[in-house]
Amino acid sequence: MTRLKDIAEVAGVSIRTVGRALKGEGYVEAGVRERVLGAARSLDYRPHRLARSLRTGRSQEVLVLAGGIGGQYDELHIAKIAGMERTLRAAGMSLGLLFGIESEARRAGRDVLDELIARRPAGLALFASATLPATATARRLVQARVPYVFFDTREPDVDTVRHDRSGGVREAVRWLAGRGHRRIAYIGSIEERSRLDGYHEALKALGREPLIVDCEAEYNAARAAAATLMALKPDAVQVYSDILALGLLAGLHELGVRVPQDLAVVGFDDRFAASLSYPPLTTLQQSNEAMGAAAAAILIAKSRDETAPPGGWTRTLPMSLVIRAST
Amino acid sequence: MTRLKDIAEVAGVSIRTVGRALKGEGYVEAGVRERVLGAARSLDYRPHRLARSLRTGRSQEVLVLAGGIGGQYDELHIAKIAGMERTLRAAGMSLGLLFGIESEARRAGRDVLDELIARRPAGLALFASATLPATATARRLVQARVPYVFFDTREPDVDTVRHDRSGGVREAVRWLAGRGHRRIAYIGSIEERSRLDGYHEALKALGREPLIVDCEAEYNAARAAAATLMALKPDAVQVYSDILALGLLAGLHELGVRVPQDLAVVGFDDRFAASLSYPPLTTLQQSNEAMGAAAAAILIAKSRDETAPPGGWTRTLPMSLVIRAST
Repeated sequence: MTRLKDIAEVAGVSIRTVGRALKGEGYVEAGVRERVLGAARSLDYRPHRLARSLRTGRSQEVLVLAGGIGGQYDELHIAKIAGMERTLRAAGMSLGLLFGIESEARRAGRDVLDELIARRPAGLALFASATLPATATARRLVQARVPYVFFDTREPDVDTVRHDRSGGVREAVRWLAGRGHRRIAYIGSIEERSRLDGYHEALKALGREPLIVDCEAEYNAARAAAATLMALKPDAVQVYSDILALGLLAGLHELGVRVPQDLAVVGFDDRFAASLSYPPLTTLQQSNEAMGAAAAAILIAKSRDETAPPGGWTRTLPMSLVIRAST
Repeated sequence: MTRLKDIAEVAGVSIRTVGRALKGEGYVEAGVRERVLGAARSLDYRPHRLARSLRTGRSQEVLVLAGGIGGQYDELHIAKIAGMERTLRAAGMSLGLLFGIESEARRAGRDVLDELIARRPAGLALFASATLPATATARRLVQARVPYVFFDTREPDVDTVRHDRSGGVREAVRWLAGRGHRRIAYIGSIEERSRLDGYHEALKALGREPLIVDCEAEYNAARAAAATLMALKPDAVQVYSDILALGLLAGLHELGVRVPQDLAVVGFDDRFAASLSYPPLTTLQQSNEAMGAAAAAILIAKSRDETAPPGGWTRTLPMSLVIRAST
C-alpha cells in the first residue's frame, strides 16, 4: 500500500506537507498541492479516511436515520442535517444519510439496530419515530457502545437535543400580553403537553383564565375550528404549529375575521411557509442548524470517550419569536 | 484481521450465512443473526464495507454537494437526496452529504474539486450553483474519472437530471385554456427562458397574444406587481414559482381580487407552502424523488463503467399539474 512517505518522495516535499495537501488542512501552496495530488494519483494512493477507519476499527462516519420524516420531506430536518454535517466535518468526520430503513427492515422481518451496529458508525443520530422507541433504542445502543443522540424526543433516559417548547410558548404569550392583548387563546392538540404547559404557566402568571380549543394537528382541522375559536372571543391566539396556523388563517379569511386587526395569530416552527402566507406569520422559531451542531458535538465527544457533563448529554435549546404581520 | 471464516467457525454456521447476517441481505433466522453478530463483535470484525473499499481503491460512497442550496434549506432538495439514497442503498452503495464546501474552500483559497477527487468517491452529485460552473466542472471530473451527475443545470455538455419546465408550463396553459380562460398571462423573471418558452409555445398554438409581466423572483416583488398584472385584465396567470405565486396571492388579497373567481393562479414547484396557502395553490409539481432516483441510477451505471445510452446520460423528467383551489 502506498504510504505518505512514498508520495512525499515522488513529490519532493515533506510528509507533513503531503498530509496537509491530502487533507486540505492548513496552508499549502497551490502548485505544491497539485504536485502532491498528482503523485498520490500516480501511486494509486488510497484515501486516508479509509485507512484510518480500518486502523481504528471504527468508521469516521456518523449515520443519520432520517426515517421518521415520512412522506413529506422537511426543510426543518435538512437544516438540522446541515448543521450536523458542518460540525462533523470541522472535526474530521463525515455524515451519511439513511432514509426509511426502519420500515424497510421491519417489512423484511429484520432488526435495523443490529444492522446499524454491525456497520460500526462513529455515531448515530436519530429522529424520534414511532417505529424506533427512543428509550429502548438508546439502551441497546449504549450496550453496543455506539455513540448516539436523538432529536426532539421527550422519552425518559435518552440523550437528546430538543427545543424548549414550553419556554417558547410562555415567552410568546407574555409578549402578546405586553402588546395589550386581553383574551389570549391556545389552539392545537392537547395531547402534546410541552407547548400547552407553557401556555398554562404564562396565563397563570398573568392571572387569567385559559381559552383552549382542542384540535387535531392538521391544516383542515384548524381551518374548520376557526368558528369554535372565535366563539371564545379571543383577541390573540397561540397556535400549536405553523401548519395549523396557516389552516386557521384560511378559516379566518372565510369567516371575514381580519388578521391582525381582529385577531393576532402566532405560529410555532418557523417553516418556510410561515414567511409566505397572507399575512406572513409571527411564529416561534426552531434553531435547527444550532440543533444539528449540538447533536454533532455530543456525538464527537462520545466517540472520543469523553465523560458526560454533570447534567448529562441532553441539551435544550431556546426558541425565538420571529415577528411578522400576523400580530 | 478477522475473516468471515473465523466468524463462521465461532458462530458455528456457514460463511455464506455470516455474509448474509452481516450485510442484512437474504433470510437469516433471528437467533442465528444474533450469534453471528456476537461472534463478529467478540472477534473485533471490521466492517465489510471498508474492506471492500480498500480492495477496490474506490469508496462505495456517493457524495452529494449540497452547497448550492444556500441559507434557505429546501424541502425540494431533501426529497431528491432521499430518492438518491434509497436507490444507492439498493445497489449496495451509500450517500454522504457535504454542505457549503465550495464557498468554504474558495474563502481558504483551495480547490474544492481537487479535494473531492482525492477522496475517490464512487460518484458525485452536484446541485447547479454559481461557484461551480457546470460545464467546466464536468470536464474536470471526466478527466479525473469521477462519475458525476448534476441536478437541473441548463449548461451544455453536462450530464444532468432535470425537469421539462417548458413542457410543464405548456400543459398548464393548455389546461387553463381548456377550462375556458381567454386571457392567460405569465408573471416571472423573463431571464429564465425554459418556462417562458413553454408559455409562448402554448399561446402560439392557441393563436393568442402573450400577456407578460417581468418580475424578480421574490415574494415581495410579486406582491407589488399584482396591480401591474391586473392592468392587463387577465382571467388566469401562470406564475414562475410557488414563492412568487404566494406573493402574488398576497398582492391580490390587498387589491380585493378574488382567487379563483376573478383570476385563476397556477404556481410552479409544488413546495409544501403551496398546499398551505389561502386558497391552496394549483401548481406544477417537480417529481423530486424520481429525480434523485434517476441521478443515482446514472452514477451507479457510470461507476460500473457502463457505456452511456445512445442519447447520452442526461434525463429530462415530466412535470405534473396538481390541482387545488386557486383555479
